[in-house]
Parts: sequence; C-alpha cells; structure tokens
Amino acid sequence: MRDVSIIGVGQTPVGEHWDRSLRELGVEAVRSALADAGLERPQALFAGNMLSGVLCNQENLATLLADFAGFPGVEAIKIEAACASGAAVVRAAQWAVASGAHDLVVAVGIEKMTDLGIDGITAGLATAADADYEAAHGISFTALNALLMRLYMERYGYSRADFAPFVVTAHENGVHNPQAMFRETVTVDDFLNSPMVADPISILDSSPVCDGAAAVVLCPSEQARSFTDRPIKILASATATDTIGLGPRKDPLWFEAAYQSAQRAYRQAGLQPGDIDFFELHDAFTIVSAMSLEAAGFAERGQGVRFALECNIHRHGKLPISTQGGLKARGHPVGASGTYQIVEAVNQLRGQGGANQVEDCRLGMTQSIGGMASVAVTHILGL
Amino acid sequence: MRDVSIIGVGQTPVGEHWDRSLRELGVEAVRSALADAGLERPQALFAGNMLSGVLCNQENLATLLADFAGFPGVEAIKIEAACASGAAVVRAAQWAVASGAHDLVVAVGIEKMTDLGIDGITAGLATAADADYEAAHGISFTALNALLMRLYMERYGYSRADFAPFVVTAHENGVHNPQAMFRETVTVDDFLNSPMVADPISILDSSPVCDGAAAVVLCPSEQARSFTDRPIKILASATATDTIGLGPRKDPLWFEAAYQSAQRAYRQAGLQPGDIDFFELHDAFTIVSAMSLEAAGFAERGQGVRFALECNIHRHGKLPISTQGGLKARGHPVGASGTYQIVEAVNQLRGQGGANQVEDCRLGMTQSIGGMASVAVTHILGL
Repeated sequence: MRDVSIIGVGQTPVGEHWDRSLRELGVEAVRSALADAGLERPQALFAGNMLSGVLCNQENLATLLADFAGFPGVEAIKIEAACASGAAVVRAAQWAVASGAHDLVVAVGIEKMTDLGIDGITAGLATAADADYEAAHGISFTALNALLMRLYMERYGYSRADFAPFVVTAHENGVHNPQAMFRETVTVDDFLNSPMVADPISILDSSPVCDGAAAVVLCPSEQARSFTDRPIKILASATATDTIGLGPRKDPLWFEAAYQSAQRAYRQAGLQPGDIDFFELHDAFTIVSAMSLEAAGFAERGQGVRFALECNIHRHGKLPISTQGGLKARGHPVGASGTYQIVEAVNQLRGQGGANQVEDCRLGMTQSIGGMASVAVTHILGL
Repeated sequence: MRDVSIIGVGQTPVGEHWDRSLRELGVEAVRSALADAGLERPQALFAGNMLSGVLCNQENLATLLADFAGFPGVEAIKIEAACASGAAVVRAAQWAVASGAHDLVVAVGIEKMTDLGIDGITAGLATAADADYEAAHGISFTALNALLMRLYMERYGYSRADFAPFVVTAHENGVHNPQAMFRETVTVDDFLNSPMVADPISILDSSPVCDGAAAVVLCPSEQARSFTDRPIKILASATATDTIGLGPRKDPLWFEAAYQSAQRAYRQAGLQPGDIDFFELHDAFTIVSAMSLEAAGFAERGQGVRFALECNIHRHGKLPISTQGGLKARGHPVGASGTYQIVEAVNQLRGQGGANQVEDCRLGMTQSIGGMASVAVTHILGL
C-alpha cells in the first residue's frame, strides 16, 4: 500500500447559492484545489454527494463535473454514504492512489440543497434513514436527534443550556472564516431563546441547509514534494457502520460506528486520542457533537457536554473542535461537509488557519457521520 | 498493487419483483455470493446503484444492506456511475483490495425500478443525462438513442431489420438462463412488428425496466485458492468518461468513453481485441450494441451491425456476446447490470455457463455504459 498525501485543497463559500448551479460549485472547488496543487488536470475525479439525484435531478454527477471542469476522458465516479459522503469520497480516492491505479486524483464533496423547498429537503435528508421502517412513518432527522438529546439530558442530568458551548464556540470560529455561512457570534441567551424545531432541539442546536463544494488533490506521498513543500499525510482513514435505524440499538446513546471508525483510525496511525491536536467533528446537532466526543475517545460516556462546559473545545483549549465554524456555523451542505472538514484540517496543519489557527498542531482528526450515526468516516492527518 | 481475484458470485432472478424490497434483493445476492465463496462475513460491502434515492427514497444504501445482511460494523459505501454503477462498484472494490485496505470485499450491484410508475422511472433514468441542458427539455434516453440509431442507419446504409440479430441472439441466450427476465425466443418478424417507442427504436430494440441484484466477492489473488479452486483473475479494469451531453461531441456516432476504457483495459492486460473469447456488452438498445462493438475494437466504424449480421455474435461465433441474454433478455436493472455482466463472465470462465457455455473460453470482457455513453467501465477477466 502506497502512502498517500494531500497536495491541494479548495472550497467554495458555503451558503444559499441561488446564483450558482450544482456544476458551477463543483467545478469551482475542483479548479481551486488543482490550482493549489499547481496541477492542470487530474487522472480521476471522484465526487462525494448524497442528494444530487433527489434534489437536483442529476445522477451521473461525477461525469458531469469531469466534463464541465474540462477533463475529457478522465475516470469519474460518485460516492454516497449519506452525510458522510464527503469523507467517504476522500477515502475512496485514497484507495485509488494507494493501489497504484492512479497517481493524481481530485476528490470533491458537493451538495446543492436549496433548489428545493424545505419539505423536499427534509424528505431528501430522510433518505439516509430506513425508508421502509423509519422515514415512512414521517420522522425527520431533527426529530430523531431530538429523541437522543432528550434521553441524554434525562440520563446524564443536563439542561438545554449545558449544550450552549458547542454553538457559541462554533459561531466564534465562524466569524473568522471567510467561507463560513454564519459569521456572527451567538450568545448563550441567543441559544436559549432561539425557536424550537423539535423539542429540545432549537434552530440554534441545528446546522443549516445550504450549498457548497470542497475538494482535495491526492497523490502518492513519495511524489508529494514535487508538487508542494507542505504536503499533508493521510495517516489513517477508516469507515464503520451501525444499524441504519435507531430502534434496534442496544443503547441509542452510543455511536458504535463512530467509535469503531475512530478506533480503527487510531490503530492504523499508532496513535491515541491524547495525541490529537484538534478535532473537526460532525456538529450537525449539538447532541451529535457531545456523542462524537465520547465515541472518538475524548470524553467518557455522558461527559461530552461536560467536556465542552469545561472550555476544552475552544481554540486554546485541550481539544479545539469545529475550528472554522464546523457544520453549525461554516454550514452543512451534507455530502460536502466531510470534505470541508478535511480541507480545514489541511489548512490548520499547514499553518493557514488564519485567525483561527491552532498553535503547534501536528495531528488533526476529522470525523464525518451519516444518517443516525449509522455510518462514520474518520481521518487522521499529519505533517 | 496487489492482484485481485473474484472468489464468489451470486445473483437474484431479474424481473418485476413486486413481492421483494430493495434490501431483500440486495441481501439475497450478497449472501449468495458469500456462500459461493464459502465466507460468512466480508470486511466491507460496496453497493453499486444509480436510483435508490430517486425511485425508492433510500440513500445510505450500503449501510442499509450491510445492516440487513447481518454485518454490523463493516465498512459500507455506495458507488454511482449512472447505468455503469454495477461495474464501477467492482472497480472500487478492487482498489480497496489492491491497496491493502481490505482483504475480503463484497460488491453488489442493485436496482429496484418497478416501485414507481413508468413516468417516474423515465424521469429517474433521465438523471443520467445533463439535468439542466438535456433532461430539462424533456428528452428521454430512448429518444436520445433513437437519434443515434436514425443517424447510424442514414450514414452507414442499414435498415431496421439489420439490427435484428442483436435481439434474436439475446433472446435465444435468455431462454437457457434461469435468472433471465425474458426466456422466450424472438423472430425477425416479431422484431419488425414490435410497437415503436421512439422511431426507429421499437419495444424490442430496448432492454426492459426491472429489478435485480448481483454480487461478487473479491480478495487478493494470492489468497484466492484458499477459498476456491476456480478463482477468476481481474486482468484489467478501466473507466473513462465523455461529455455528459450528446450535443457537444464531434461525432455522435462514436463512443469515445467506451473506446478509451477498452483501450486502457487492453493495455493493462497486455491484450488485443482478437484475444478476447466473449464479450458481455451493454445492449441497452440495439444501437448501443452496434456502437459498443466498434468502440471496443471488435468491428470497424459503421460495421458493428454488419458484424452481427455475419453471425459473429452467436455462442459459436467469432465473438459471443450477451451470453446469458444480456441487458435485452436477462434484463437491465440499471445499477445492477454491470455486476450481472461480471457474474456471467465469471460463470463462463468457470465452465458454469450451462446450455450457453462458451467453449474453450479463457478471457472474457465486460463493458458497462452509463448515460449516453458518457461513462464506460471495462473489465477483462481470465483464468
């Protein structure tokens, strides 16, 4: 297996891009990542995406992007793993490079959600649940996560206010990220007074519906320095799954797929949670942040919220998270978010984190979660 | 790069499975392939599928299948490359094994098309075209292929009757395939008198809308003989793309992606068209069969139809094609067809082709095509 490095990254701003189509967003991110790597043309283009068929009437998405990016002939495929598609595509691109099938692959995570009304989007997102046994009953992902948050508060004795640090920190970081959708701070009072969506989940517990695309260029590590003097190594990459439905789990308050995926990544890299300098986690809802911290080994069971309350997640804390605003403030274009996390981790490791730069960081971890944590993809990146 | 072999294959019958759900079809094919390999559990499950989101409200498909097949924890992702998804998924699984990421991967191609009415299916299939510049105008894939067939007949001087051998041969082969959707012969008269869909394409030029799933198990070639005494080697695997739209092509009567993908496969395997013993081609429409024979190097430009008229494509001909009925008679559950082709090629190479066994075959080629041949995936398999 050849070691694989990231030699270029690119991203579009995240937001409601009424004036830009699916293909335009994808091509912008791809070209930006290639320019960053000093490359004109990759050998293959992989697209990570969840909902282009359902929301934009467009499958064959990777072919479309390869065509409009101007790469006639290149190999192109789409990877789908629900909201973890943007991380799964980087993992698939890594196999293609590690196996020797290709030397230069661009992986782009992309989602255009706003072309449909909110009912259509909610139904689209529900395709990540079990269509026959969950979604058919009308439960949305916000409602599913609300069940978890209520149970978590009951079992571990937290109030809604205890979840505020996740939101306040994400928005603080978003302010300094020019690509973020929300660049304003949020106070604890704002959080507590924000409109309820599915009790106890309010609008400010939730990441936004939005559009965006992010891309990375991969090559064998042994060739990386001919493209850049700051290649970032993929030290670990691991995916795991759980039951697709929330119902059959022994303990709904445990993200087994996120745990397994993190454990596999630690083993691959020969590292432990304490070695990680920052963590781009999947803060789709505040409850997901808390449970991700636990599943990835940074907090004990039931202590994810306490970990945040004790100021560990700030930029100068023990484990900075969502360093460029996370899904909450940067935004959550679902199939793209996993790639955004990796782009942001690369920027941190390169020392290009701007006002949100994590000091002395050498090892960053990203974890992207799909469905009700039924699939999770973890990467560990390093210098 | 580790060499990769196929150690197990499985398939469901192809047809209108009103009594079986998406997950049931997938699990049946996966379990059948694993049983064939003597395995209980793979390390990863990859699903090739085009339309589960659009037609069945189900994304996160690979997680669903891993869950219901009884493999908690395994890695799972879905691969989409329009109607070539079923071949692209085998290619992706091959990278995962070749790279060393996994030793045992099951790749399942799956499609459940019949849960929606025909208008919904036609619209779903049109997501493989350019949504903004082709499908938005209402043109269907049958109509796009009718344009090609008309032009082909005009330019090269063929009549509709000249396309009959593709249909007659496919149905002859389908009769002996217990998994085929259509197991009855078709005469030239039947073909000529069949109802027109989009002139000059009639119902018998076209492959049917249907459901099905097929699966293969892959492992490193060096381990293959510990599972089976008849492993089949993947000698080549290559994908190429063309413009997604038919409009921008220099010559619409040339499948450049199919050509490039075949050329890359020949180079990888160190082979030429004359070395291939049989060819599972993408006979979604008769015109696609003709143009695939030309793109893959078996016939000169404009001679694909003549090649069939000269009886080369029969089981005892120079190049048997669609040996188990092809997309036309076995059926074309779109995202599954590429995997069916590979399963059928494996069976031929093992000598398990039944009444349709190709004699003395040692090298088989499969080619799966997506969209208006905007993406093509070619495999060469051998003993």
